[in-house]
Amino acid sequence: MAQEENKNQHTPHKKLKLGVFGFGCVGQGLYHVLNETHGIKAEIKKICVKNRDKKRILDSAIFTYDKNDILTDNEINVIVELIDDANAAFEIVKTALQNGKHVVTANKRMIAEHLPEIYALQQKHNRSVLYEGSVCGSIPILRNLEEYYDNDLITSIEGIFNGSTNYILTKIFEERKSYTEALKGAQDLGFAESDPSLDVKGFDPKFKLTIAIAHTFGVFLKPEQVINIGIQKIAATDLKYARENNYAIKLVARAYKKNGKVFALVAPQFIPTDHMLASVRNEYNAVLVEGAFAEKQVFIGKGAGSYPTGSAVLSDISALTYDYRYEYKKYAQGEGLPFSNEATVDVVVSFPKGSLLSPKDFETFKGGYQGNDYQFMTGTVKLEKLKIWNEWDDVSIILAPELNLNPVEETKKELLFA
Amino acid sequence: MAQEENKNQHTPHKKLKLGVFGFGCVGQGLYHVLNETHGIKAEIKKICVKNRDKKRILDSAIFTYDKNDILTDNEINVIVELIDDANAAFEIVKTALQNGKHVVTANKRMIAEHLPEIYALQQKHNRSVLYEGSVCGSIPILRNLEEYYDNDLITSIEGIFNGSTNYILTKIFEERKSYTEALKGAQDLGFAESDPSLDVKGFDPKFKLTIAIAHTFGVFLKPEQVINIGIQKIAATDLKYARENNYAIKLVARAYKKNGKVFALVAPQFIPTDHMLASVRNEYNAVLVEGAFAEKQVFIGKGAGSYPTGSAVLSDISALTYDYRYEYKKYAQGEGLPFSNEATVDVVVSFPKGSLLSPKDFETFKGGYQGNDYQFMTGTVKLEKLKIWNEWDDVSIILAPELNLNPVEETKKELLFA
Repeated sequence: MAQEENKNQHTPHKKLKLGVFGFGCVGQGLYHVLNETHGIKAEIKKICVKNRDKKRILDSAIFTYDKNDILTDNEINVIVELIDDANAAFEIVKTALQNGKHVVTANKRMIAEHLPEIYALQQKHNRSVLYEGSVCGSIPILRNLEEYYDNDLITSIEGIFNGSTNYILTKIFEERKSYTEALKGAQDLGFAESDPSLDVKGFDPKFKLTIAIAHTFGVFLKPEQVINIGIQKIAATDLKYARENNYAIKLVARAYKKNGKVFALVAPQFIPTDHMLASVRNEYNAVLVEGAFAEKQVFIGKGAGSYPTGSAVLSDISALTYDYRYEYKKYAQGEGLPFSNEATVDVVVSFPKGSLLSPKDFETFKGGYQGNDYQFMTGTVKLEKLKIWNEWDDVSIILAPELNLNPVEETKKELLFA
Repeated sequence: MAQEENKNQHTPHKKLKLGVFGFGCVGQGLYHVLNETHGIKAEIKKICVKNRDKKRILDSAIFTYDKNDILTDNEINVIVELIDDANAAFEIVKTALQNGKHVVTANKRMIAEHLPEIYALQQKHNRSVLYEGSVCGSIPILRNLEEYYDNDLITSIEGIFNGSTNYILTKIFEERKSYTEALKGAQDLGFAESDPSLDVKGFDPKFKLTIAIAHTFGVFLKPEQVINIGIQKIAATDLKYARENNYAIKLVARAYKKNGKVFALVAPQFIPTDHMLASVRNEYNAVLVEGAFAEKQVFIGKGAGSYPTGSAVLSDISALTYDYRYEYKKYAQGEGLPFSNEATVDVVVSFPKGSLLSPKDFETFKGGYQGNDYQFMTGTVKLEKLKIWNEWDDVSIILAPELNLNPVEETKKELLFA
């Protein structure tokens, strides 16, 4: 008993031998961070890479091109998975767990798409998968949701979940750069995903939101269930509208618990310039958590870049030295909230003259404006309608600054005629 | 081994019986928070209060007026200490630990003044003292410093560490209230300490900073070692200066690691209105942590009020169900950095005409301005000089927006004549 109570103090932390998959931006960041810190007992034994011809900063002896060299090495007790390909990554994670190894990964797409399986595999093989680096880079949001908000009744989580689009939007607004220039800048700095459409179309923040929802509300979603609207269709007229009204534009990911259901959305939004989110610039991310007792909590930190993500990965490795595991308490407590897209939001849509949109598409039409080539319409609209508009190339959708995401009433008027 | 690795998942969390000292604002907040949450196995058995005549919201059977009713009750395994008196609180904590009980407290003054003893008592009696609620209310900063920044090389921690002064400054700036009106408002809302001078003179944020320094740099300070400058001498001319220059004024607590030493200061500062700290309003607190790898991290949350603090206290209670203890890793790793006040900062001082200040008091004098009744001087000044000015009733000291806290060179010119 006394011994058990004392584990934090006296259990010697375990020595870890790491097998790393991938040696790109984050992998190299991890290598440097690991090299320059003290007090963590972890050592990279092997690194598995794909490209034999690439010049490497380390001696070739540490590299292997065969994943089994790592996955079947009994001395390696932790796999650090940092490759791009989500499917290949999942196979690595599965085999690693089957072979009795713990896993640290920053692969948001892989986690978001396979969370129920990864949860089950951890239970089955009695091993830990940690992925703090997969959500908002350096911000310790998952660990805080797991540990600190255990007993707080969280009603919402929202924020800026993507560093490269925030960098692009900042440069467009503050330095009046074009979208193309700003995207190029983000890519040059290593902030953007290898496929930039994952960032700019809002898929990357959606993967992160899906993971965050599991740890916030205990609900495992498929990313496809969440609607994502990107920044790629934001038009010059939208920027003008924002500047004239003293707004910034931010790509905001959000999930709410309302009426016993979970709602989620990724979409750009006009944000008043004196709002805290407007002060989150460049590659910084921000997460706002609202709960019954702690009330509003905000976490801000770098959401992209090799060192911030490497630092989150290292923090997970460090947690494995004392056998840390996510408990998925909210899932285990089994509230089992349903997910729903049956909600309305307030939006500003802009589109070229002659498009098919009409005031009748809105639940409540608030007003419109017609310029030389463009039209604006504002009002309250159903998420399912937004999803359709989002597929039209020429319609730009930006949420109104005061977001009202409201569940559609169960008894809909359409039902009367069903 | 397999069993040990699995403790997070399968060890049943312990059932806690709580003995609570104090039933004021935070105690009542805790009671409500505990009542309305699920999934935490903790129950209040007794509450020790001082005043027999006060009306209570609970049945009188739960109250006791004798501390030994709680301290010697073998069924009670956790003491929750929420009284005002720091000395009495320390005696309770000491006895509780001696009697084999864990402690949760939100008493910043007591912790700040007795940290080395509290550390030693935890080691000696093999029990845990948790005090997340003592630093910045609902912000989980201590747990994050302990768990998440373990392997990050932190260079600075700073922010708004006091909710009531931030509330006062917000009301003065945004609603043009007088200092007295704004202080009254903070007191009415239960944000201010029972002795408001602890808040407005900067002692309360200094206690919190002292605690944060222990978990950030592993250095145990006496609060007296840190210079604290309050907001009580801020003059109408300072407000005017701030408004004309587009600044807010915030009371900022900060600690830096520079040249192998730790420096710390609590003082008001001009903050540009588009700076993130300026968007932290009313009773909200903010903590900025800067490290080598995670780079800048910001935590924002309510720093005062019964529910936010009650929520932090509950989070500590929850952590005790799985035997959590602060490891004081940075202290245990024993860098043992010295603390120093041998530094200079850039300030704006204002004072009535005829005061004894002169440009010669500055290391570097940048300029002055003389109004009808008041004078301003700006420049670089040593902390020891600030400490003297701080004792003069009519000198208002506010740090310049771009703070340069720089260590004074080891070889000082005075030494030549020593």
